[in-house]
Amino acid sequence: MESTAPVIVLVRPQLGENIGKAARAMLNFGLTEMRLVAPRDGWPNPSAGPAAAGANGVLENATVHDTLADAVADCAHVYATTVRKRGVTKPVVTPEEAATEIARAQGRSAIVFGPERSGLETEDVALARAIVTVPINPEFGSLNLAQAVILCAYEWSKTQWDGGALVQPTGEDLLPPAPQEELDSMIEQLEAMLEPRGYFQPESRAAATRRTLRTMLTKPGWNHLEVRTMRGVLSSLSKPRRDGA
Amino acid sequence: MESTAPVIVLVRPQLGENIGKAARAMLNFGLTEMRLVAPRDGWPNPSAGPAAAGANGVLENATVHDTLADAVADCAHVYATTVRKRGVTKPVVTPEEAATEIARAQGRSAIVFGPERSGLETEDVALARAIVTVPINPEFGSLNLAQAVILCAYEWSKTQWDGGALVQPTGEDLLPPAPQEELDSMIEQLEAMLEPRGYFQPESRAAATRRTLRTMLTKPGWNHLEVRTMRGVLSSLSKPRRDGA
Repeated sequence: MESTAPVIVLVRPQLGENIGKAARAMLNFGLTEMRLVAPRDGWPNPSAGPAAAGANGVLENATVHDTLADAVADCAHVYATTVRKRGVTKPVVTPEEAATEIARAQGRSAIVFGPERSGLETEDVALARAIVTVPINPEFGSLNLAQAVILCAYEWSKTQWDGGALVQPTGEDLLPPAPQEELDSMIEQLEAMLEPRGYFQPESRAAATRRTLRTMLTKPGWNHLEVRTMRGVLSSLSKPRRDGA
Repeated sequence: MESTAPVIVLVRPQLGENIGKAARAMLNFGLTEMRLVAPRDGWPNPSAGPAAAGANGVLENATVHDTLADAVADCAHVYATTVRKRGVTKPVVTPEEAATEIARAQGRSAIVFGPERSGLETEDVALARAIVTVPINPEFGSLNLAQAVILCAYEWSKTQWDGGALVQPTGEDLLPPAPQEELDSMIEQLEAMLEPRGYFQPESRAAATRRTLRTMLTKPGWNHLEVRTMRGVLSSLSKPRRDGA
């Protein structure tokens, strides 16, 4: 399947450093295509590279455009990010919803971000089919450019996981619980140590006490290595102290 | 319903600026409780405030702790964030999965982040019940501290968006895991019994052996009744046999 990776468009970004950080945010989640509309300090910008922290390829391949219309000319689906909803009659979606739409879409998609301080102008938003708004703390909305980019990139990347394409399987490390008979032997060992110390007294409570112990020791789902470790612990505890105390 | 908002714990953070950025990331998504373990440059740190961009309340209320164990002593659910999985036998979850668990959990949760360059030490991870790993581009993993914090905060905040159908605690009869300090006391009790029996010999393996034990005993998520039962078992095992054998 063709990648549905969206283009990230930065409109009139002010600081080269923020362009670099946005590139880094993108590449962390597998986005590589950046487009810049009229960057304030021109392009290339010497501050961008250091902030990209290795995502230099994204910067080197970034294209520069005079207008947003030009930057998204080949895109079928344009999403404008805004922090707060404005009086516009366009669908407003979360980053997650946008990512889902983008992942299913035919044709290229673009997510457009405005300048650091002011955000997108109304005319920029007008070009978009939908608005992406990150639902943030209504009393403290202070997402910076790279953070807005990373949340959108992250959500897109999540649509690509497919139950684990990017995530390495965790199964190799996680052994299954030990067979019941190993667990039983461990519990027997413990009970044999507790019995002569009066733990199961009074006799009337013994059955319930055994059940409690078994429930507790079954709960972890210890694997065979862990059961073996616990048996080693019990064997150690059966030994006399070396200090003779 | 009581808020399930997790505590954010920064372990040995290096730059005040990054602490400030983490505070800003938190507050954007409604998290307010920050705990600092041995911040490199002490606390308060004059670089933190400007980077917090208004999230000063989070910084002012941040508490400082000598150890991670102290910082999470009142937390029933501790998540350690790591970029790459290590050879640890703990559940590995995504930020989304962690957020879902936290939203449903009884008892406080903590999400723990390591120092900027090195990430969490193995001993820090050993304190956690589960590991949170953000699935990032395998060829370019370069999330900074504030970005890791913001993704976790964002995912938690998403669990709060829709009315709570998802976030009701399941099963009233399921007690939460005991607070970390109760678990620690139990482990100390066991170690004090094992030590004089040579369990931690040779000395060169002692630290790894302690970690293995701790991991194994953290895995069950025993509630306070179960921890008490286990302590009773240990006390019994310390007694002489009644049959004199």
